[in-house]
Amino acid sequence: MAPTVSRDTLNPKVLQCEYAVRGEIVTIAQRLQDELKAKPGSLPFDEILYCNIGNPQSLGQRPITFFREVLALCDHPAILDKKEIQGLFSADAIQRARQILDQIPGKATGAYSHSQGIKGLRDTIAAGIEARDGFPANPNDIFLTDGASPAVHMMMQLLISSEKDGLLCPIPQYPLYSASIALHGGSLVPYYLDEATGWGLEISELKKQLEDAKSKGITVRALVVINPGNPTGQVLAEENQRAIVEFCKQEGLVLLADEVYQQNVYVPEKKFHSFKKISRSMGYGEEDICLVSFQSVSKGYYGECGKRGGYMEVTGFSPEVREQIYKVASVNLCSNISGQILASLVMNPPKVGDGSYESYSAEKDGILSSLARRAKTLEQAFNSLEGVTCNKAEGAMYLFPCIRLPQKAIKAAEAAKKAPDAFYCQRLLNATGVVVVPGSGFRQVPGTWHFRCTILPQEDKIPAVVSRLTEFHKSFTNEFRD
Amino acid sequence: MAPTVSRDTLNPKVLQCEYAVRGEIVTIAQRLQDELKAKPGSLPFDEILYCNIGNPQSLGQRPITFFREVLALCDHPAILDKKEIQGLFSADAIQRARQILDQIPGKATGAYSHSQGIKGLRDTIAAGIEARDGFPANPNDIFLTDGASPAVHMMMQLLISSEKDGLLCPIPQYPLYSASIALHGGSLVPYYLDEATGWGLEISELKKQLEDAKSKGITVRALVVINPGNPTGQVLAEENQRAIVEFCKQEGLVLLADEVYQQNVYVPEKKFHSFKKISRSMGYGEEDICLVSFQSVSKGYYGECGKRGGYMEVTGFSPEVREQIYKVASVNLCSNISGQILASLVMNPPKVGDGSYESYSAEKDGILSSLARRAKTLEQAFNSLEGVTCNKAEGAMYLFPCIRLPQKAIKAAEAAKKAPDAFYCQRLLNATGVVVVPGSGFRQVPGTWHFRCTILPQEDKIPAVVSRLTEFHKSFTNEFRD
Repeated sequence: MAPTVSRDTLNPKVLQCEYAVRGEIVTIAQRLQDELKAKPGSLPFDEILYCNIGNPQSLGQRPITFFREVLALCDHPAILDKKEIQGLFSADAIQRARQILDQIPGKATGAYSHSQGIKGLRDTIAAGIEARDGFPANPNDIFLTDGASPAVHMMMQLLISSEKDGLLCPIPQYPLYSASIALHGGSLVPYYLDEATGWGLEISELKKQLEDAKSKGITVRALVVINPGNPTGQVLAEENQRAIVEFCKQEGLVLLADEVYQQNVYVPEKKFHSFKKISRSMGYGEEDICLVSFQSVSKGYYGECGKRGGYMEVTGFSPEVREQIYKVASVNLCSNISGQILASLVMNPPKVGDGSYESYSAEKDGILSSLARRAKTLEQAFNSLEGVTCNKAEGAMYLFPCIRLPQKAIKAAEAAKKAPDAFYCQRLLNATGVVVVPGSGFRQVPGTWHFRCTILPQEDKIPAVVSRLTEFHKSFTNEFRD
Repeated sequence: MAPTVSRDTLNPKVLQCEYAVRGEIVTIAQRLQDELKAKPGSLPFDEILYCNIGNPQSLGQRPITFFREVLALCDHPAILDKKEIQGLFSADAIQRARQILDQIPGKATGAYSHSQGIKGLRDTIAAGIEARDGFPANPNDIFLTDGASPAVHMMMQLLISSEKDGLLCPIPQYPLYSASIALHGGSLVPYYLDEATGWGLEISELKKQLEDAKSKGITVRALVVINPGNPTGQVLAEENQRAIVEFCKQEGLVLLADEVYQQNVYVPEKKFHSFKKISRSMGYGEEDICLVSFQSVSKGYYGECGKRGGYMEVTGFSPEVREQIYKVASVNLCSNISGQILASLVMNPPKVGDGSYESYSAEKDGILSSLARRAKTLEQAFNSLEGVTCNKAEGAMYLFPCIRLPQKAIKAAEAAKKAPDAFYCQRLLNATGVVVVPGSGFRQVPGTWHFRCTILPQEDKIPAVVSRLTEFHKSFTNEFRD
C-alpha cells in the first residue's frame, strides 16, 4: 500500500498559505546562482543582487562588535577567568557577559529558561522600554521569542478560532501576516494604505472595512499595524497613532503593533513612537487597551537575523488570558538563549562613558547613515523611471515603487499565467540578476502593480542595482509599449 | 468599551491544550523557591530538587567544551585571526570554526539561512546519519529547527486538517504530542505501552486502536514512536522496530520517530537503531514509507537545551508534499544559526586523532556513565518503596514508577479536586521540595497512577532525592493506609 500522504490529504490551510518573500522568485535566483557558479559568463550578469529580503548581514553588513563579544563570552564562559581575554575582548563586554551570566540561574546558558525568557534579561528589556518610552514596563509582560515571527504566530493561534475571526491588516502587508492568518484559519480583513499620501493610514478606511467585515458575519479581533511600514517604509505620525489607539479602544480591538523597525528611521521630520507610549500618553492604561508590541534583533542597525531573537510586550490582557498565552509559550519550552541575550543587548546597548561606546556608536551611525543614503539613491532612481513612482522610505528597509505596466505587458503576463508584477520581476531577474519581490506577494490595490526592493545591498553595489534596473526598465517599456 | 478578548473568545483549541511538564506543579515549586529565598528556614527543606524536566545544565551538568569553543568562535569570528586565541581555544576547535564559517555564505552567522538550514551543515549532518546508520542520507532531507518541538508542530500542522485526522501516540507519552495535536485540532489515537513487559509496544495493540479509530470515522495519518521512550525510558528491540515499520508500511501511515534520546542508552543489552536504518535494512526505500526522524541538541550527553537546535530528517514524501513542508518551514525564515551549528557538531563530534578527542570523550563518558548510575540508584530506590514498582530506565532521562495509592488517598485527592497522582506529587513537593510530574500529565492506563522523575540531579544530590522521597512515601502510605 502506498503512503496516504498526498497534497490532497494535507491540511488545506497549509495549501492556502503563501509566503512570497521566499517564493518562486527566490527559487529562480538560486538556480541562476548555481548556473553562474557552474558556468561563469553564461548569463548576462556576473552576480545575483539580492534585494528581496531584509537580511543585512547576508549582503555584507558587519555585526556590532560589542554584541558579538558578549555573545561569544556567554557561549564559552570558561574563558572568562583567563587573562588572554583582555587582548581579545573589550573590558565592558567582559563585564556585561559576567552580569548576564549572573542573571542566569547557575550561569547555565545551556539550560531551558523560564518559558517567557530569563527573568534578569526581561528586567533589562523592560528598563530599555521604559527609557525609550518614558512610561513603566513590566518584565512579566515580556515574552522572549525566536524572532518576531513565532510571537506573531502565537497571537494568531490565540485569537483565531475559525474563519469567523478577522484581523484587520494593512494592504500592502508583510506576508507573515497573511500566511499566519491562513495557517490558523482566520480571515484577513484588509485595510488599504493610501499610496497618494505616502502610504497614509486613514481611520475612515479602518471603519469602513470593519463595518464591511461585520456585515459578512466576521468578528474582528485585532488590528495589525506595521510601523515603520513593511513593505511600504512609511513612519506613522504621532496624531495618526493616537487616532489608531482611539479606534482600537472604541472598537475593543487588540492592537498588534509590529515595531521591529523601530531603530530604522531615516528622515529628520519623523520619529518612532511605540504604540504603548502613545496609549499611555493618552492616559490609557492596562484596563483600557490590549496591546502587543513585537520587537526583533533581526532588524534595526544590528540586523542579526540568524540569531532569531525577539520579544513581544503583552499588556492589557486579563490574568486568565495571560495564562493561556503563557501556556502556548511553554509548549515550545523557551526561545534560544543567545537570542534572548542579544535582545537584552539591543535594548540596552553601550552608553556614554562605557569603554565600547565610541566604537559602538561609530558602527551604529555608519550603518544607519549608509542605509539612509541608499534609500535616497534608490528612491530617486525609481522616480526617474518612466511610469514609476515611489514614495520615500522614511523608515524600515524597503522601497515599494508603483509600476504602471503597459496593456501589452499585462497581456503577455496573462499568457504566461503570471501576475503582471511577477512577470516584470522575473524578467528583471533573468535579464539583470536583480532580485525584487512582486507587489502581488504583499497584496495591493487591485489593478496597481508594485515590487518591493530592499535598501540593503552594500553602497558599492547600489550603482549596479540602479544601472541594471534602469536599463532593464527602459528595454521592458520599449518592448511592451502600447 | 472593554477589550473583547476573554477566555471565552480565545481559540478553544488553545484552551484544550495541556502541558504538564510546565504545569501547576512547577508554579508551586517556583513559589516555594521564592519563599525559601525570602525566608530561609521557613520550609521543611532547604532547597528545591527539580526532577521534573529534562534540562541537564540547569542542574549543574557542564557543557561539552569543544562544542562551546566552536560556538564562541563562530559568534565572534573577528578574533580568529588574533594570536591570543591559541591559549584560549583548542586547535581543532579553531579549525572546525573556520570550516563551518567557510560553509556559511559570506561567513555571515548573523544572516537568515536557507529555510532548511545552512547547506554545509546539512551535509555534515547527513554524513553523520550515514555513519550512524550505514545507509545513505540526503542533505536535502534535513530541516534544521529550533529544537525538536517546532519540527513536531510543523508535521502536525501539515497532517491535521480536522478532528477526523488521527495520530497514533503512545500512552504514556511526552505531552508535546497531546498538546500539539490539541493545538492543531486533531485526534490523539492512544496505544498503550505494556508496563508489565517493560513498556512493551505490541503491534496487536496498534492494530486494535487503529481499527477502533476507523470505526469512529477517524483517518489515522501517522504513528508517533518515542525511542528511547519518554517518560517511560525503554529502548525498543530491533525486531519490534521492524514490526512497527511493517505496520506503517501496510497501513500507509507516516512514521514520526522521536529519536532525540538516541545517545542516551544505559544498558549493554540494548542499542539505539534509527527507524530509517531499520526500514532501509528491511529493503524499504523512499517509495515505501514516509518517515520523519526528530533529533535535538537538548538531550544526549550534550544536553544543550538552551541552544534550541535540532533537525528532522524527512524521507519518502512526494515532491509536492515536500514543497509544502518547505513552505511551512520558510514562513519562520530559518532556525537559529548557533543551534544549527551545534546540531552539526553533535552529529560530527571530535574523532580519534583530533586534538580534543580525549578530553571530549572523557566529558561524554563521564556524563553518560554518571547518568547510568543515577538511573540505577533511583530505580532501586523506587522499587524498594511499598506499593511502588518501577521499570528500568534503559535509555532517555526518566523513570516512570507506578504507585498503587490507597483508596483513602484517592478519596482525599477527589476531595481536593486533584488527580490522585497530582495529589501525591504536590504533597511530595510541599513536604520535601522534590519536584516530579504526575503521570496524569502523560496519560496512563485508567486507574493506574505514576509520576515521572528525571535522573538529572547531580550525583551528590541523588542521596537527598532518595531519602526525602523514601521518608515522604512512608509517611504518606501510613497516613492514608486503608
